[in-house]
Amino acid sequence: MGRWEPGASGRLREAALALYLERGFEQTMVADIAERAGVTARTFFRYFGDKREVLFDGSSELEERSLAALEAAPATASALDAVSAALDAAAETIGDNRDLARARQRVITANASLRERELIKLTSMSAAVAGGLRQRGIGDAEASLAAETGIAVFRVAFERWVNAAEDRDFGDVIHETLTQLRTLTAAS
Amino acid sequence: MGRWEPGASGRLREAALALYLERGFEQTMVADIAERAGVTARTFFRYFGDKREVLFDGSSELEERSLAALEAAPATASALDAVSAALDAAAETIGDNRDLARARQRVITANASLRERELIKLTSMSAAVAGGLRQRGIGDAEASLAAETGIAVFRVAFERWVNAAEDRDFGDVIHETLTQLRTLTAAS
Repeated sequence: MGRWEPGASGRLREAALALYLERGFEQTMVADIAERAGVTARTFFRYFGDKREVLFDGSSELEERSLAALEAAPATASALDAVSAALDAAAETIGDNRDLARARQRVITANASLRERELIKLTSMSAAVAGGLRQRGIGDAEASLAAETGIAVFRVAFERWVNAAEDRDFGDVIHETLTQLRTLTAAS
Repeated sequence: MGRWEPGASGRLREAALALYLERGFEQTMVADIAERAGVTARTFFRYFGDKREVLFDGSSELEERSLAALEAAPATASALDAVSAALDAAAETIGDNRDLARARQRVITANASLRERELIKLTSMSAAVAGGLRQRGIGDAEASLAAETGIAVFRVAFERWVNAAEDRDFGDVIHETLTQLRTLTAAS
């Protein structure tokens, strides 16, 4: 009880998502999640601050990896190429586990306060990417626009990827969406 | 008392914005707004459901006008041109009163729950624009991407316009941002 439990964090995450889908997020208690995962509530709190954090604790890793890729892009890369590198890193971070991403998305879509949290997360990501672009010497105006455009591509690609019947990689869907953006803006 | 008050809605809006800036949104009561505007609280509630609605009651007009412009765009217009027509209509709707837009933005930026409300409004706008594009016969994937891109342009242009020292029209800033988007996506 309360000791280190190998694999507990993964089991807790799976149990939480299953219960959020079965009963709804609001109706699920931390004690239910712990019971389903075969651990104590105390063990739950060793890994997650609350039941919402199970859904959002990947955000900081996503942001860190994306920003690292943005920073590592060649100095000659255009603003959108740098953003594209960040999107690739995001796809690698999320893309390992499509079932998890799908379950998470269904839970979030079903709950207004979780949808708000997700929107805030994306807005904060946009601000961070704009900051990273400014550090690359890109002007304020272009940096904000490239970041917002990148978030738009991410949102659309993510929705396609979690909803698609087929099994393409998230990275492939991101590239397709970026190509479509170039076509869209070149068309007129 | 409670009768029709000519100009009361405009006075209430100005009084509310002034108080939100002076005292903060949370600290302002409907009674304070009514008193500042020289009307009763009952008159306030003839125009606005609550103190938050003073800030967001323009949203439905904005959405209606933007969607009407989208629908009225020539059948030959590309997805992004149709979105651009919607953005022009949005600029016309908002652009009349820059001081009001600025004050409103400062109030919203200062309050987390208002920022969330604004994000939700933009997301709903994006969904509505995507729906309008699908009605023009544009495929799902392209419609979502064009709508999200349009919202990205709107956000960036709006921020520039309310923050800029100069006095360009909101429509001009939108056009400049759209041109910048084309340059950005063509650059690589």
